[in-house]
Amino acid sequence: MSRVINFSAGPAVLPLEVLEQAKSELLDFRSSGMSVMEMSHRSALFLEVLKEAESNLRLLLGISDNYHVLFLQGGATAQFSALPMNLASAIPRAEYVDTGSWSSKAIKEASKFCDVNVVASGEEDGYKQIPDIADWHIREETAFLHICSNETIGGVQFKTFPSLGIPLVADMSSDILSRTIEVNEFGAIYAGAQKNIGPAGLAIVIVRKDLCGEARKETPSFLNYSVQAESDSMLNTPPTYTIYLAGLVFSWLLEKGGISVLEKENELKANTLYRAIDDGDFYSCPVDPEFRSNMNVPFRLNTEELEKLFLERAEENGMFNLKGHRSVGGMRASIYNAVPVSWVEELVSLMNDFENEYG
Amino acid sequence: MSRVINFSAGPAVLPLEVLEQAKSELLDFRSSGMSVMEMSHRSALFLEVLKEAESNLRLLLGISDNYHVLFLQGGATAQFSALPMNLASAIPRAEYVDTGSWSSKAIKEASKFCDVNVVASGEEDGYKQIPDIADWHIREETAFLHICSNETIGGVQFKTFPSLGIPLVADMSSDILSRTIEVNEFGAIYAGAQKNIGPAGLAIVIVRKDLCGEARKETPSFLNYSVQAESDSMLNTPPTYTIYLAGLVFSWLLEKGGISVLEKENELKANTLYRAIDDGDFYSCPVDPEFRSNMNVPFRLNTEELEKLFLERAEENGMFNLKGHRSVGGMRASIYNAVPVSWVEELVSLMNDFENEYG
Repeated sequence: MSRVINFSAGPAVLPLEVLEQAKSELLDFRSSGMSVMEMSHRSALFLEVLKEAESNLRLLLGISDNYHVLFLQGGATAQFSALPMNLASAIPRAEYVDTGSWSSKAIKEASKFCDVNVVASGEEDGYKQIPDIADWHIREETAFLHICSNETIGGVQFKTFPSLGIPLVADMSSDILSRTIEVNEFGAIYAGAQKNIGPAGLAIVIVRKDLCGEARKETPSFLNYSVQAESDSMLNTPPTYTIYLAGLVFSWLLEKGGISVLEKENELKANTLYRAIDDGDFYSCPVDPEFRSNMNVPFRLNTEELEKLFLERAEENGMFNLKGHRSVGGMRASIYNAVPVSWVEELVSLMNDFENEYG
Repeated sequence: MSRVINFSAGPAVLPLEVLEQAKSELLDFRSSGMSVMEMSHRSALFLEVLKEAESNLRLLLGISDNYHVLFLQGGATAQFSALPMNLASAIPRAEYVDTGSWSSKAIKEASKFCDVNVVASGEEDGYKQIPDIADWHIREETAFLHICSNETIGGVQFKTFPSLGIPLVADMSSDILSRTIEVNEFGAIYAGAQKNIGPAGLAIVIVRKDLCGEARKETPSFLNYSVQAESDSMLNTPPTYTIYLAGLVFSWLLEKGGISVLEKENELKANTLYRAIDDGDFYSCPVDPEFRSNMNVPFRLNTEELEKLFLERAEENGMFNLKGHRSVGGMRASIYNAVPVSWVEELVSLMNDFENEYG
């Protein structure tokens, strides 16, 4: 068995220790004689798994009791609908900032359920930056303000969060758990699991309790925050094995020392990589320096031919999934929590060698 | 490591061979150097997994090209909403048969999205049987007729399917793949995975193509059958690892000889168990013989004290999850495809011993 270096944008690499533990107890979890995936979601043992996962997540992010933590199916895309259905019913209006591919999708979906106002868009300048907050046009009576904290495809990341007197809602699918945040600054945070949390098939929703309870009548029950909160995320059978794996990731994060430790590591990785890109004009990054993501690092070469060659060379050297998203081309290194510093160093070393040869 | 005998109603036991294969390739799938759960859903290797799963399912059930096969998140509960949103929009009416707990839930949820007519209900007689088709009151212009082919909690199962000139839709969560069916008799079939397919976190939808395309405007995209069909179930990131495991189960079924082989085994298991229940008056089954489920076998003893004792004795003998659903009490043995005949024989042997001691 030889594991490769995996820069996938998601589903993404998981910590080796997590996979090894999952493997060791796949046929028999905690001497139950069953796999986690074979036991009732209402069994004492699975309830332990779910409780541990929730309390460790609360610990990692410092989530206070006035927030629900929900483990739901459907990924972030389901939340694009669930969010306005739950939070923009009494006031059927919401403000959205457009910073790239994922916020655009959220906007399109939300428009089915409420009156959406795009307060600012980075589209005109090719999503190289986050529009200046001074230019955002926010309506007075509105349910929430939605941002995508990190655009996985474009590599644009909010470094600070706006505080404008209306509930702030963030899609943190690709940077949750990668840096310290103040949950109390948010009305809701949601994230698909398949980047920094676990396998695909799970979304985590952290929502202020007082914002729930007024969902539109036609909200499917499994997407209703209050209903799911009352049933401890078990109105319907939850994705038990995926939750178990997310729980293993949370434990791994705590053992590493918590998010502040990861945050430093993530900054180191990102800085190392951006420095290699900016050093000379052989490589380039399309994003303005102050908005560059610490999780997804897009970079280009001068010709598509060179890019193809680079990607081939990377695979020859055991580095996979460096191809940029099909909508933007080029390269992209996703360097989530589970990517060790040494992998980034190997990538930089490859970049230097490649530049020496073709630069 | 010692595996126990597991009669869980769902999430349920999986074939040991499937778990062993999953374990062996958990860290490195097909020499990719990654786990299936760590690779992009759009990677060539995962697309292979998805295609294999779909084509094997089509083979097992004999699904023709005029049906979509979708792999979606949210389990059957999500389909309780998705179904009327997709199929009862042009004609916003649907007929439902109430045969127990799960059809009642489907009815409640569908009522949010269309005008539901309960054509017949077994509630009055305690869901002991399926109401006689001669007494069903079906409206003329209606979108579909919905049944739950097997009630997991009550243990009531349709042995034949009604053919009434309107599209028949069946929730087959707890008996899909357990017996041969004629897919062409159905407008749509859906099933949560966690009983006869794989782990929780996945629903399979088999839907006649000509019924799709007129979903209500406010259908969340990830629940829209046409949209998901056009994107090969990948509008959003699908639950990749769960699909992989479902695929392993499909391969296992094919290796066993296909569904007709399983059907015979399932009949043998059910007959063995019902015979033990009916032999004397120590045990009893609340369901009328002609509607008894081959998948979920509820049975009672004369007192709750005896039932408690029986469940304890079962666990002492390595047999778990025999407790009936909390809403009905008593015992229930779920004997899905992955339960071998020998487990049922062990249960019957325990039942006989217990009767000899306390009868």
